[in-house]
Parts: sequence; structure tokens; C-alpha cells
Amino acid sequence: MSAKEILRDHISKTISLTDDQFDYFFSHFKPQSFKKGQSIITAGDVVDAEYFVLTGCLKSFYINDDIKMYILQFAMPTWWASDYNALYANTRATINVDCITDTEVLCLHNADREKLCSEIHAVEHFFRWRTNKGYVASQKRLLSFMNNDAKSRYEELLRMYPQLYNIVPKNLIAAYLGVSRETLSRLYHS
Amino acid sequence: MSAKEILRDHISKTISLTDDQFDYFFSHFKPQSFKKGQSIITAGDVVDAEYFVLTGCLKSFYINDDIKMYILQFAMPTWWASDYNALYANTRATINVDCITDTEVLCLHNADREKLCSEIHAVEHFFRWRTNKGYVASQKRLLSFMNNDAKSRYEELLRMYPQLYNIVPKNLIAAYLGVSRETLSRLYHS
Repeated sequence: MSAKEILRDHISKTISLTDDQFDYFFSHFKPQSFKKGQSIITAGDVVDAEYFVLTGCLKSFYINDDIKMYILQFAMPTWWASDYNALYANTRATINVDCITDTEVLCLHNADREKLCSEIHAVEHFFRWRTNKGYVASQKRLLSFMNNDAKSRYEELLRMYPQLYNIVPKNLIAAYLGVSRETLSRLYHS
Repeated sequence: MSAKEILRDHISKTISLTDDQFDYFFSHFKPQSFKKGQSIITAGDVVDAEYFVLTGCLKSFYINDDIKMYILQFAMPTWWASDYNALYANTRATINVDCITDTEVLCLHNADREKLCSEIHAVEHFFRWRTNKGYVASQKRLLSFMNNDAKSRYEELLRMYPQLYNIVPKNLIAAYLGVSRETLSRLYHS
């Protein structure tokens, strides 16, 4: 599928746009290609865009004062990624987003998303429901951390990203789950 | 302020509605009063509404298999509460919402919120931004749990709810932070 078809298929699960509306919507997205390991957002950056993944895989992550990495999210095809705290609050990035594999994205600037939401009511509906789903996923992940339940985080990860194990190194999966490589091995073989 | 004025003041921070539009919007909210300790949502319930707090304080919490309580959120006046996972996905509640003090709320049913969002574009904009802010708060809280940084969770709590210490028992604050009462005392006096 082309980038345009992938995006249309994705939004069609929530809203219907006419061909003209979708052409206009799509015209605000800029295709970008990144190499494996390349950084898209670095802590400290001004953040004015979000990214819809077409191919490849991103990770958004936080590095604490002890240089330990925490993975907030993987973003596979048809997932969205950014530093939403920085994007929505118009502050500088506190997290990083980079490429686990070569990755193609569609970039949407903050101002363009707001313009599209204002001009086309259905687009505002789409983005409301996208965030609703993100909010619920984030609450579930929070509960599994509060409950210190690595096994449920592992099972949720498998459910959300069944292809992930073929793409992502085990140390990154451990960093997502918030466990050591040894604990991951035990979950993996249980 | 009356319930109507509190809600109008709250939404005016994001959108403008005409008096007629606001009257129509407000007509979908049902005032409800609850006593201290009373339950609004219990795990296992069908969830078809969310609650805008006028006075008092709610907590949303999860009880694990070991009967240990984890507090996801406190809801003070002008905050919203529900089991959003159940509400949005049309499943049964996995969390509970009850009253820390006597509490007055405005209840909005799921179907009414969706009708209002569909009928009034500005209302859809309001709810998109409400969820955007909730999503960002949830991501920040997740990072502080991943990073196991109780001190930053404590400071964030004080910033978000400066009046909380006069209202909420210390054991509930510890359950929100995910720490013991002893650790809370150390944070409190540091």
C-alpha cells in the first residue's frame, strides 16, 4: 500500500472523509525516512510535530540521571509517536524518539493538526478518539507498574505488538517491561 | 458558584459556547450527591457515565489479588473521573471510584457526551483537549513509576493538588505514591 492508502485505511476505522477532504487532510503530512539508530526527537529539542509510522519501528524513551533507559512506547506501523507532553504544552522534549529499524513516517505539525481539527469536525473526532485510546493504554500500563506485575506487562506487550519479538532486541523489551534481562528470560520461557 | 457556573467556568478555559449552546450542553448533566465512603463505580459494574466533581473529593483505585489498593487518581473540584477503560471500550469496570468526603458531581452519560460532541464541534474540541491533558499527566506518572522516583511523584502530587493534605488521610496519599507510610513520612519531612 502507498503512504496515502495506509493513512486512509487507518483513519477510516474511526471516521469517513470524502475523497476531497482526505486529499486535503493528507496534503498536510510530510513523508520522512530515517535510518536505523537515527534520532527523531532528542531531549531538549523544541517539539512541533508528531509522526505516523508507515514502515519500521520507533521507540520513545527516557534516560534518567543514572543513564538508565526507560522505554515508554514502541511505535510500529499505523502507530503515532511524539513527545506529547512537549508537543501539547509547547515545552522542550524530556523524552527521546529514535529508530529501532529503518523507518518511514508521515510527519504532521502541531499547527496543521489544530488547523485540520478546526476546519473538519470529523478530523477533530478522529484525534479525540486516538487520544482516548492512548489514555486508556497509558492507564493500564500505569496500573501494571503500580502493581509491579511484570507478567501482565509482558502479556499485554505480546497482545499489542505480536510481531515485536522478531524486530526488537531483548534488552529493549526488558527496558519496556522495566525488568532485568534475566527476569525477561524467565517470563519468556514460562 | 452554582453547578452551572462551575461547569461554564471550567469549559470556558478551552472553548466558547453561546448561552443557548451552554444551556443545551448543561441540560445533559445530572446533579448527584454522595456521602463520604459511598461507592460510585465498583469493579464489575457496567460503566456508562463519567463524573465532573463540583465539591468534595473522589478516588479511583484498583484492588489486586492480594487485596492491596493502588490509587490511580484523586478527583477534586473541576476534575473528571470514571473508569475510562470500561467507559470507552464498553466493558465492565476493573477499577473502583468512591468518595473520600461528601461529594457533589455532575454525571454525564457516554451516549450524551458522544451526541454533544457530534452536534457541537466546539464540544468535541473541549473533550479532545481534556483527554490530551489526561494522557500527558498519565505518561508523566508512568515515567515516575518506571524510574521509581517517589520524591518526584510526591512533588507532582503537591503541585497538582495543593489542598490535598488537608482532605486526604496519609494512608491514601501513600497508596497514590506507591510507597509505605514510613517512606511518605520521610518525603513529608525532607
